[in-house]
Amino acid sequence: MNLAKLIRDVPDFPVKGVLFKDITTLLKDPDAFQEAIDGLIDRFLDEEIDIVAAIEARGFIFGAPLAYELAAGFVPIRKPGKLPWETISASYTLEYGTNTLEIHKDAIQPGQRVLLVDDVLATGGSAKAAAELIERLGGKIVSIVFLVDLTYLKGMEKLQGYDVFSLIKF
Amino acid sequence: MNLAKLIRDVPDFPVKGVLFKDITTLLKDPDAFQEAIDGLIDRFLDEEIDIVAAIEARGFIFGAPLAYELAAGFVPIRKPGKLPWETISASYTLEYGTNTLEIHKDAIQPGQRVLLVDDVLATGGSAKAAAELIERLGGKIVSIVFLVDLTYLKGMEKLQGYDVFSLIKF
Repeated sequence: MNLAKLIRDVPDFPVKGVLFKDITTLLKDPDAFQEAIDGLIDRFLDEEIDIVAAIEARGFIFGAPLAYELAAGFVPIRKPGKLPWETISASYTLEYGTNTLEIHKDAIQPGQRVLLVDDVLATGGSAKAAAELIERLGGKIVSIVFLVDLTYLKGMEKLQGYDVFSLIKF
Repeated sequence: MNLAKLIRDVPDFPVKGVLFKDITTLLKDPDAFQEAIDGLIDRFLDEEIDIVAAIEARGFIFGAPLAYELAAGFVPIRKPGKLPWETISASYTLEYGTNTLEIHKDAIQPGQRVLLVDDVLATGGSAKAAAELIERLGGKIVSIVFLVDLTYLKGMEKLQGYDVFSLIKF
């Protein structure tokens, strides 16, 4: 199946001049959703994965089935103020301003093998910050996994040193 | 496994006086996460489910594995401004003020059988609004499913007429 064709282009979202890749048209197609999850899991079926960590909110849509299928625990990495217990945080720069991500202090035990998951690799800022959070807790990042890589934004450059996999490239 | 025991009480979150049920301590435990998803899916293995719709953001953590396992499509119901394409919206009242949820206009086809999923049933306002969105698109709600029902908040009363299932009751 050509999964890329099921992703809808929405012009001028979230701001004028941006062509947004809308994955909801893929998600609602049962065969496509199945194939996407299978395609992401495939490389890790023989790996020992302790934790699948995913970035709020669309990362959860891929991270949770991966955790379930790989018999791993699931850890949410969230925007500030969403996690109720004690957290550590990391900030990253956007074109204008900064964003912050948080993880619970007890989310990962030192030495645990972690898969980091998000829906789209754009500039790589959020994935880099999330990876930093996992490593500060002592987690070992086995791979960083995306449904889509917007290669023209060169996010891969920010993730040098990590094993990075994406199913669809634009 | 006693899943309820794996949920952590966090006092005064998000506001003073509220005892928050923190499910992240359950999610990060591989066996508990597996058992939770299995417990939610179990009743629907013999049902024909076309779409699993889930409410942002924690609902995605349960809705996505259910969609994958039931070979259904996945539809996100989100906070205002998050969905990039054309939406319809429904508002619901909180103790102070109102909240709004949105769904893409093309998310559900008339007659499709839909499972609505969220993590916690509290006062039932968000689930009721989400159910209304699904029905306005012509979807038929097979059941509304939660990991946790905070029974003392009487959310079930707001969802009368629906089949409602929750795995853990407090």
